[in-house]
Amino acid sequence: MILPLFFIFCLFSSSHAAVQDFCVGDLKAPQGPAGYSCKDPSKLTVNDFVFSGLGVPGNTSNLIKAAVTPAFAAQFPGVNGLGISSARLDLAPGGVVPFHTHPGGSEILVVVQGRICAGFVSSANTVYFKTLNKGDIMVFPQGLLHFQINAGGSVAIAFVSFSSASPGLQILDYALFGNNLPTELVAATTFLDAAQIKKLKGVLGGTG
Amino acid sequence: MILPLFFIFCLFSSSHAAVQDFCVGDLKAPQGPAGYSCKDPSKLTVNDFVFSGLGVPGNTSNLIKAAVTPAFAAQFPGVNGLGISSARLDLAPGGVVPFHTHPGGSEILVVVQGRICAGFVSSANTVYFKTLNKGDIMVFPQGLLHFQINAGGSVAIAFVSFSSASPGLQILDYALFGNNLPTELVAATTFLDAAQIKKLKGVLGGTG
Amino acid sequence: MILPLFFIFCLFSSSHAAVQDFCVGDLKAPQGPAGYSCKDPSKLTVNDFVFSGLGVPGNTSNLIKAAVTPAFAAQFPGVNGLGISSARLDLAPGGVVPFHTHPGGSEILVVVQGRICAGFVSSANTVYFKTLNKGDIMVFPQGLLHFQINAGGSVAIAFVSFSSASPGLQILDYALFGNNLPTELVAATTFLDAAQIKKLKGVLGGTG
Amino acid sequence: MILPLFFIFCLFSSSHAAVQDFCVGDLKAPQGPAGYSCKDPSKLTVNDFVFSGLGVPGNTSNLIKAAVTPAFAAQFPGVNGLGISSARLDLAPGGVVPFHTHPGGSEILVVVQGRICAGFVSSANTVYFKTLNKGDIMVFPQGLLHFQINAGGSVAIAFVSFSSASPGLQILDYALFGNNLPTELVAATTFLDAAQIKKLKGVLGGTG
Amino acid sequence: MILPLFFIFCLFSSSHAAVQDFCVGDLKAPQGPAGYSCKDPSKLTVNDFVFSGLGVPGNTSNLIKAAVTPAFAAQFPGVNGLGISSARLDLAPGGVVPFHTHPGGSEILVVVQGRICAGFVSSANTVYFKTLNKGDIMVFPQGLLHFQINAGGSVAIAFVSFSSASPGLQILDYALFGNNLPTELVAATTFLDAAQIKKLKGVLGGTG
Amino acid sequence: MILPLFFIFCLFSSSHAAVQDFCVGDLKAPQGPAGYSCKDPSKLTVNDFVFSGLGVPGNTSNLIKAAVTPAFAAQFPGVNGLGISSARLDLAPGGVVPFHTHPGGSEILVVVQGRICAGFVSSANTVYFKTLNKGDIMVFPQGLLHFQINAGGSVAIAFVSFSSASPGLQILDYALFGNNLPTELVAATTFLDAAQIKKLKGVLGGTG
Repeated sequence: MILPLFFIFCLFSSSHAAVQDFCVGDLKAPQGPAGYSCKDPSKLTVNDFVFSGLGVPGNTSNLIKAAVTPAFAAQFPGVNGLGISSARLDLAPGGVVPFHTHPGGSEILVVVQGRICAGFVSSANTVYFKTLNKGDIMVFPQGLLHFQINAGGSVAIAFVSFSSASPGLQILDYALFGNNLPTELVAATTFLDAAQIKKLKGVLGGTG
Repeated sequence: MILPLFFIFCLFSSSHAAVQDFCVGDLKAPQGPAGYSCKDPSKLTVNDFVFSGLGVPGNTSNLIKAAVTPAFAAQFPGVNGLGISSARLDLAPGGVVPFHTHPGGSEILVVVQGRICAGFVSSANTVYFKTLNKGDIMVFPQGLLHFQINAGGSVAIAFVSFSSASPGLQILDYALFGNNLPTELVAATTFLDAAQIKKLKGVLGGTG
Repeated sequence: MILPLFFIFCLFSSSHAAVQDFCVGDLKAPQGPAGYSCKDPSKLTVNDFVFSGLGVPGNTSNLIKAAVTPAFAAQFPGVNGLGISSARLDLAPGGVVPFHTHPGGSEILVVVQGRICAGFVSSANTVYFKTLNKGDIMVFPQGLLHFQINAGGSVAIAFVSFSSASPGLQILDYALFGNNLPTELVAATTFLDAAQIKKLKGVLGGTG
Repeated sequence: MILPLFFIFCLFSSSHAAVQDFCVGDLKAPQGPAGYSCKDPSKLTVNDFVFSGLGVPGNTSNLIKAAVTPAFAAQFPGVNGLGISSARLDLAPGGVVPFHTHPGGSEILVVVQGRICAGFVSSANTVYFKTLNKGDIMVFPQGLLHFQINAGGSVAIAFVSFSSASPGLQILDYALFGNNLPTELVAATTFLDAAQIKKLKGVLGGTG
Repeated sequence: MILPLFFIFCLFSSSHAAVQDFCVGDLKAPQGPAGYSCKDPSKLTVNDFVFSGLGVPGNTSNLIKAAVTPAFAAQFPGVNGLGISSARLDLAPGGVVPFHTHPGGSEILVVVQGRICAGFVSSANTVYFKTLNKGDIMVFPQGLLHFQINAGGSVAIAFVSFSSASPGLQILDYALFGNNLPTELVAATTFLDAAQIKKLKGVLGGTG
Repeated sequence: MILPLFFIFCLFSSSHAAVQDFCVGDLKAPQGPAGYSCKDPSKLTVNDFVFSGLGVPGNTSNLIKAAVTPAFAAQFPGVNGLGISSARLDLAPGGVVPFHTHPGGSEILVVVQGRICAGFVSSANTVYFKTLNKGDIMVFPQGLLHFQINAGGSVAIAFVSFSSASPGLQILDYALFGNNLPTELVAATTFLDAAQIKKLKGVLGGTG
């Protein structure tokens, strides 16, 4: 018998270079508004689609007793262009992920160990917060200020996912106090007292 | 002191009904291509954004020794319009989530217990599969056939997230054998033998 | 002469109800993730596409000596579904629009009177700010914290536009201090001192 | 044998109402920016996904000796929300589809009978036109002015598809001369002579 | 008279390089999630927007007596970035396009010769199929399994269009049997008998 | 005290190169369907986000007594990928921006000086026009023909914004009369008289 389905098979083969099922990011090639350039699909292996970095607890020996380990496109190029990414949250007892936003995506969180009090504030200035138990999930709409706090006496762990391969992360305290924004500008735009601002600039490494 | 920031405060209050930070689905109102109609934001509580259904193991007492528990917009209306959703996978020893696709979104999986062999096939007909350990994540690009198999001797659990609030789920065996598609049509469009088709129709409740 | 182009003319007429050139919002009908339901196109007039509310200065007799007058889909239903909206900024001498974000869209600002110091902070914690003169425009990427301050001795006016019909507006001080979020939660998630928090809660009408 | 795959089968059944594989338009329900509301999926048949209106030649007994028969969401509700639609072009000898645009989508045309001269003009004012033979396809980017002319001595037929379920259709002559836009406004905004405008208003049923 | 409209004309000319009316794909330049890089617009001709490859019948001398000839961005770079593409289907008597999906787009099919039985299966496991006559169109929602079979005694031809410039094509039999996926993995994830799998691997060139 | 928040701070620093808050266009690097490649974020300053070119009146010493000064991505690379851009309109007494479309975006216009009569025509052939006063805004839906005319005795100025960083601009008269499209083709596709066409070709520099 001659080669069956030959025509279609050819179609497959010849279009290999153009497959747009996925676009594993080439972090060294030009980046555009939609993400990184694609690696050559003929050179991909399953390891381009697997990331093991979230299997290791983040280091929570810090002031906030918490760690966020991202698996965004920059760390896990396999998600580039696919509209999804993940991260791991480790919260030691007393640990806090302070107020922050993800400008580029909504977030869904699942608690896999311990208890976490999580909340967000809407544009209408309403606060939504609750203590979540193992297996509970909560969604944080795109761009809104939210936080997570360990609500139990033991280590809490959560995995979060985002509706973007590069959701971004803007931590409020760092945005306000961790850079060179002059104290008087911070005061004028937040109504915080100068002493309070300078105190936190000291803690977070800010100047001005 | 007179009311400070009064004007802006008014802005907040008056625009309450129009806030589009989120659009918690009203499952009884009209549905459109972008999702469900929104519930009245003034009636929402934090429970609209939290879902506890994934905290309970799915029932794996079935042929595939596996269970998929979805938290899509239909089960968890808080994700409506936010471009993200989740599900839980329970795989008893020997358990399998057979070949399936999500027509509407890409998937990211994180193993939280046990070991899982997971894989997908690209449009270019290449197979990517690997055994994942606890904490490993893997991404499955939108619309491609993929599977998950318990690769250890104990129960395996994973949480998955999708780049859509309603990613859909098309399980290959059900699409082929679990409905009234005539055996001869299945045979013509899959090249499977009629006996094989009839056997699986019997198992999966199909007719024709 | 018989009716020319008749067939095509019919096409026009009969498809009237289905025209999707625009979707002027019907604020009383169901709202979905993509925006408001559309008003009947046969009942629209040019006034549905024109908004005069930005021609009047906002009232700056308040603590921030500033006013933001929105023309989002909720105020100007003509922009519903079109991916664009506007607002007017009035800044009396000393006026400030404090740190805020628009979770749903990027912003472009044009100064039409006076001088304005405007800035934003990136996810990478870098500050970008500059004093803008009449005719200058500045862009604020979606979801990032930004501010505007009158940088001259006279009234400053700007018009801003957004890449969304409902970009949202989350003012940092109100999110933190203008609601019932408990002081200790604010303290834990911002590292601000409790006294500072209570002081601003007093100013902004917050409780807890 | 006990019910196989039972859990997953339940998942299927119970989520029936929420299926978002498609959203066949309910032309009588509210319409939003993303399209029509969805018909109840449980009431759909294959006929919701099939349209026979393009099998009949359009009536070309008119001034332009041409007919455009649309299968947009308004005529073929099965495409609602799917980002695609079609139309049929019939061009008698000498037939012309005059300059027009589709504000909402790009177009791809395939000639299935006869020869058609087709062209478009870019924003950069460059003209691209060519005579197409049977089987040739040509793409017209979204929103750009384009035309089709019968380039042979016999009837020409083409099928076109659009990257939107409701691409819209703005025929230049009708926009300028087929309504009540005052002649002097047309003259001022096109530089055409008043006599020319009035002549075409007469032909196309315009007033003013 | 001096050059009229000069300023605007300059605007045209100087912005030539930035025109984003279209982005004809440069198949040798970096590719990103949104498609290929754009060819220099100043070097384009009408031939970049026309494709003649669908005018020739595909070779149906194969097992399935059918041929699919694509005009995706990889074959027809003019559609790159425009959200649309096409293909031609040739079905000899007895010809079948077996079950397949397009992960990246919805499809609309128009029969231009002969009769075709076409169908798809929804996520809810419902089958929709019908015999289409010349001129009938049918839509296949994104990512769902579908097929086409010659339903007459003579050659059938159809043109199809997609809501994506690179919709992808995953043919079920090739995904299951045409690669090196081990037989036992296929058996575990499809419930097919090993003998059946090995038989089809033999036909389709698979190994393992 | 040891470095506080150290882990998170590291996260910031190391992900600097991957920040996708914005993508300031590198006009010399490859361009894709989503816009220009991004400039290296570490080299950006506030001046990449500010554009002063709209502070200067456009030159209205031309036939139309009007000028359009764009701040699209090609002129203002800071808006690249952000879905927004702007332009300035100067209309001397008697000035006209003739009929044109923006194929790639909707427009919102704010009058900042003088009076402007503005209008657009829908796909359904309805005309919407009105005289706008200072401070009035009007929205022009994507892709529809529209115009602006000075409606007062003094200079009028407006700022416009678009729902795209590269909305395009197709001026009707230039598309029809300002290139090498043969007169007979223009006549056939517009029904204008050849003499009228040749007259305007002469004025606008067209040939053929």
